[in-house]
Amino acid sequence: MADATEAGKMVAARRAVDENIKKGQVVGIGSGSTIIFAVERIGERNKKEALNLTCIPTSFQARQLIQDHGLTLGSLETSPEIDVAIDGADEVDDNLYLIKGGGGCLMQEKIIASCAKSFFIIADTRKNSKVLGTSWKKGVPIEVLPMAYRPVQLKINQLLGGKAELRMASRKAGPVVTDNGNFILDWVFDGAQDWPAVERTIRDVPGVVETGLFLNMAAAAYFGTADGNVLVRTSKQ
Amino acid sequence: MADATEAGKMVAARRAVDENIKKGQVVGIGSGSTIIFAVERIGERNKKEALNLTCIPTSFQARQLIQDHGLTLGSLETSPEIDVAIDGADEVDDNLYLIKGGGGCLMQEKIIASCAKSFFIIADTRKNSKVLGTSWKKGVPIEVLPMAYRPVQLKINQLLGGKAELRMASRKAGPVVTDNGNFILDWVFDGAQDWPAVERTIRDVPGVVETGLFLNMAAAAYFGTADGNVLVRTSKQ
Repeated sequence: MADATEAGKMVAARRAVDENIKKGQVVGIGSGSTIIFAVERIGERNKKEALNLTCIPTSFQARQLIQDHGLTLGSLETSPEIDVAIDGADEVDDNLYLIKGGGGCLMQEKIIASCAKSFFIIADTRKNSKVLGTSWKKGVPIEVLPMAYRPVQLKINQLLGGKAELRMASRKAGPVVTDNGNFILDWVFDGAQDWPAVERTIRDVPGVVETGLFLNMAAAAYFGTADGNVLVRTSKQ
Repeated sequence: MADATEAGKMVAARRAVDENIKKGQVVGIGSGSTIIFAVERIGERNKKEALNLTCIPTSFQARQLIQDHGLTLGSLETSPEIDVAIDGADEVDDNLYLIKGGGGCLMQEKIIASCAKSFFIIADTRKNSKVLGTSWKKGVPIEVLPMAYRPVQLKINQLLGGKAELRMASRKAGPVVTDNGNFILDWVFDGAQDWPAVERTIRDVPGVVETGLFLNMAAAAYFGTADGNVLVRTSKQ
C-alpha cells in the first residue's frame, strides 16, 4: 500500500463489497482510484465463491477493471435494473449529498446509480465532510456539449456567481474530452449552498448534459482510515 | 413551389425574416425544411442590403445553408449572445409551447434559442394547434446517451405512461444517431398534459440530455397559408 490514503480506500472498498455484494446480482461498477480496490475484492471473492455477477461499467476504466478481474461484463441494454452499485466520490456531506466527476465519468456514473436499487459510496476518510466544499476545492463538475461551453459558463456565473472553469487536459492539448465526447466545466463556488436548488438551476441551462451533484441517491457511505477502521454513514431518509 | 404546404412555409419564413432581422445582428439559424426559406430570404436581403450578420447554426444542415447563401458563419464560442434566432417547429400550442426535434437537432436548437434575446418560430399553418398532440402524432423527441436508452424508456413509461420509442434510421441500419452522437426516443403520449411538469420529469431522468419541449421560449410564431397569408401569434407573457 502506497500510503495512508490508499489504505483507507482499500478497507472501505473491501467492507462495502463484503457487506453488499451477493451471488447472482447485477452490480454497477464505478470509476476512479477507490473502485480499483472494490473490483479487486469482487474478483477475489468470485474466485472462491463463484458469485455469478453481471457487472455494468460506468466508464472505459470500469470496463477494463471488470475484464481484468475475470468478471462478466454486462450493459444497461440487457440489464436495465441494477441490484447494487458501488462508486467513489470526491466529497460527501452530512446529508449524503455527493460531489462526483473528478474523474470525468459523472454522467455514466449517475445513470448507473439511478438504475440501482442500492447505491453505496466508498472513500478514504478525507472525503467525509459536514458541508460540500470543505475539503474538495475543485468545484462541481458539469458536463456540457462542446458548442455550448461558453454560454453555459456565462449563464452559470449570472445565475449562481462563482466561476465555471473549462477543465483542461494534461496529456493532450486543450480541454478534457469525456468518454461521451463532451467538455467539463468545474463550477468553483463560495460558501454554503442550497444544493437541490443549485442542481435544478444548473440542469435547466440548455447545453448542460449532467452535473456531478448526486443528491438523495446514496444509501450509505463507507469511509476508511489508515488504521483499518471504517465509518459507515447511512441516509437519514 | 411544390405544394400548398411549401407555400405556407415560404411566406411565414419571409415575413419573419423581414420583420426581425436587422443589420449587424448575431442570428441563430434553425434546422428543418422551413428554415431553408428563411436562409434564402436572408441571403437575398444580404445581397441588396449588406446586412453584415453573424449566423450561428443549430446543425450541420444549418451550417451548410449559411455557407451556401454566402453568409458569415459564427459560433457560440465567439458570439455567446444572439440577437434573434429563427427556427421551425413540429407543433405549436396555444401557450406557444413547442414540440421540436423531428429533424433530430433539438439540443443544439434549444441551446441557440436559450442564448437569443428573441426567438421566433416559422411554420406552415398545419403546425398551429390549440393543444400539443392534435396534429403532431410522432410524440416528444428526447435525446439520450446511447448506453441509457433502455432504462430511460422504462423510467419514462413508469413515470408518465405512453411509450418512448427508439427512433430508427432509414438510410442506415439501426437507430438514428444525432449530430451529438446520441439516440432519440420519441415519447408518444395520450391526451392533454401538464407540459412544465412533463418537461421537468423527463429532464430529471439521468441519461436524458435534452427534450424537444420548448416552453416559455418563443416570442412569436408565424404561420403561413397557401394563399400567402401569415398569422402571427405572440407570447401572452
